[in-house]
Amino acid sequence: MTKTDAAQLTADLIRCASVTPEEGGALVLLEKQLSDAGFDCTRVDRGDVSNLFARWGRKGDSKTFGFNGHTDVVPIGDAAAWTVDPFGAEIKDGIMYGRGATDMKSGVAAFAAAAIDLVSNTPPEGAIILTITGDEEGDAIDGTTALLDYMSTEQERMSVCLVGEPTCPNEMGEMMKIGRRGSMTAYFTFTGKQGHSAYPHRANNPLPVMARLMDQFSSEALDNGTDHFDASTLAVVTMDTGNPATNVIPAECRATVNIRFNDSHSGASLTDWMQAKVDTISAESGVGIDMKVTISGESFITPPGALSELVANSVEAETGRRPELSTSGGTSDARFVQHHCPVVEFGLVGKTMHQVDEQVPVEQIHQLKDIYSRILRDYFA
Amino acid sequence: MTKTDAAQLTADLIRCASVTPEEGGALVLLEKQLSDAGFDCTRVDRGDVSNLFARWGRKGDSKTFGFNGHTDVVPIGDAAAWTVDPFGAEIKDGIMYGRGATDMKSGVAAFAAAAIDLVSNTPPEGAIILTITGDEEGDAIDGTTALLDYMSTEQERMSVCLVGEPTCPNEMGEMMKIGRRGSMTAYFTFTGKQGHSAYPHRANNPLPVMARLMDQFSSEALDNGTDHFDASTLAVVTMDTGNPATNVIPAECRATVNIRFNDSHSGASLTDWMQAKVDTISAESGVGIDMKVTISGESFITPPGALSELVANSVEAETGRRPELSTSGGTSDARFVQHHCPVVEFGLVGKTMHQVDEQVPVEQIHQLKDIYSRILRDYFA
Ligand SMILES: [Zn+2]
Ligand SMILES: [Zn+2]
Repeated sequence: MTKTDAAQLTADLIRCASVTPEEGGALVLLEKQLSDAGFDCTRVDRGDVSNLFARWGRKGDSKTFGFNGHTDVVPIGDAAAWTVDPFGAEIKDGIMYGRGATDMKSGVAAFAAAAIDLVSNTPPEGAIILTITGDEEGDAIDGTTALLDYMSTEQERMSVCLVGEPTCPNEMGEMMKIGRRGSMTAYFTFTGKQGHSAYPHRANNPLPVMARLMDQFSSEALDNGTDHFDASTLAVVTMDTGNPATNVIPAECRATVNIRFNDSHSGASLTDWMQAKVDTISAESGVGIDMKVTISGESFITPPGALSELVANSVEAETGRRPELSTSGGTSDARFVQHHCPVVEFGLVGKTMHQVDEQVPVEQIHQLKDIYSRILRDYFA
Repeated sequence: MTKTDAAQLTADLIRCASVTPEEGGALVLLEKQLSDAGFDCTRVDRGDVSNLFARWGRKGDSKTFGFNGHTDVVPIGDAAAWTVDPFGAEIKDGIMYGRGATDMKSGVAAFAAAAIDLVSNTPPEGAIILTITGDEEGDAIDGTTALLDYMSTEQERMSVCLVGEPTCPNEMGEMMKIGRRGSMTAYFTFTGKQGHSAYPHRANNPLPVMARLMDQFSSEALDNGTDHFDASTLAVVTMDTGNPATNVIPAECRATVNIRFNDSHSGASLTDWMQAKVDTISAESGVGIDMKVTISGESFITPPGALSELVANSVEAETGRRPELSTSGGTSDARFVQHHCPVVEFGLVGKTMHQVDEQVPVEQIHQLKDIYSRILRDYFA
């Protein structure tokens, strides 16, 4: 009977220095282990990024369980601040340390181990697909999107998909995600007329206009939340001028706003909302306001139902906690997968992700594998 | 009969490259000419700056006419943009070009020439004091202030003083200054709590607080002007954050505000006005707001009277224009002299000051000398 050690696999993956877009040996390692277990593996490379598609069972099987995750990691940041080798996977007092320990080499190891054990020991009626990308922390242009494009071309299909990102704020099992808010960023440039501080009537200062617009954006509640979503939020993230001369009124300044929005908005509706304010304030002031919008992702939801029940039941059985069905947090690759099939996310405690001394309790990796194993068993039962 | 050529003296001064704090030979030249005409000259040097004190007539004479001016100039800026040698004093079509042509080597040359001619040809009953600084365009810490300190120590005293800065916006004779608005700058640092854009409730974003405070400052009229002053003005001159990450709410941002204020305010009263708003908005938001204030000068006025009449009459006699008694514009060294004696300012058209191809019509230099000569004659009559 096969019993794959998910903690050992996590450690092996941490030792691959796969900072986006470096593959670092992580996908090579997974491809080897999955192939050995009978998975059909295809490396889907696009741009400077490498991704791995792996299927066990018949292509096009109507009962195909999918997993999605990433092996790339964010940079280590201040190397001197780490108390351990960021790529050493050192274990101290039952805690494994390293970049990617929680986000999300442990998650990938856990679902790969669960899938390998299942197909090796009790081959299910159906298929399992693993989509593992090397570009989640980067632009995410050539990552999960490339895998989904490949699947579309090859007529590969997941019936449902579980993303293994960390989802629990503090305690294992307390939260899963059934959707995500959308995310967009608006870049503003305000252009007035330069002049001397002593003669403001001869200038047209863009700064008060920026201040007023940012105050308006910050003062208005976008909504009060919806059935499955928290209230949308808007954050002014930077306002800049760069004018060192106190006797000069500058001609130009810039501001950036980031919005996380629920299903009562869309990128387009919020763009219109901002543009209306921009137009009013620009007309009032005579200051030109240029707005450029980047929509990172629209909000989406997989409404509570069979898939969320399946995951929540397994989590509860293994941890004693029934996870909250949440849509909070930043974006993840689930925003791409949702166009393909119903998708939810569940993973371990994300507290130290992206931080110095990123770490995971070894026991939590085993527990996560047990949860994923139970999900697979119940799905194919 | 002595007839000093003020245009020639202006040209000689322009050829001294006296960019603050360089003396450049300008004060040496003036000291020589004034000494030759019977002035007692003292170089008053302080810090890295040189200044010239010159008196003709008895020390402490109750009828002592003073002039104040500066020989230092601002840097030439973009050398390639000049169509002439900035220190060449080239004359084309009756226009003399060079750094300091209007601000204010022509003014210094005109009052020095007027004073030399008067004492040489028709020695007056009384005294004349010239205070010429090499630090007006710089920090102004070791310039006119040093001269006034010297005079205080030496018990030298001007009964009245005329500052020869350019005062006419477009036409020769149209404006003189009888005071100046005060000037102050407030530097704000806003300190909140850093966080992730997706979780703004866990952060405390200082940017909306900065936006609101700057909007409040910009929206409120400080006053509607007073008898001799325009309305006070407030200009937000910079707002900065320097946060490149759209998914990060920054902990800190900064803003700078410059205020030009009339005699219905003081630096202290405006500091209190700002501090009250700061306290309210900081208490509401929980964002720390540090405010540092620099008062460059309080507002001051020499009320219309004998001195302004004397100057205005002479200007009108020579130009056919009766000058407006104004308090507009930036600061000048009159803000220091006003503590010593009644002071007004009159000089030529300042249009090209601090600019590339700074220039002055040669005829205007002669006209300015004629005005100063008439002021002296009438004063001592
Ligand atoms: Zn991740
Ligand atoms: Zn000047």
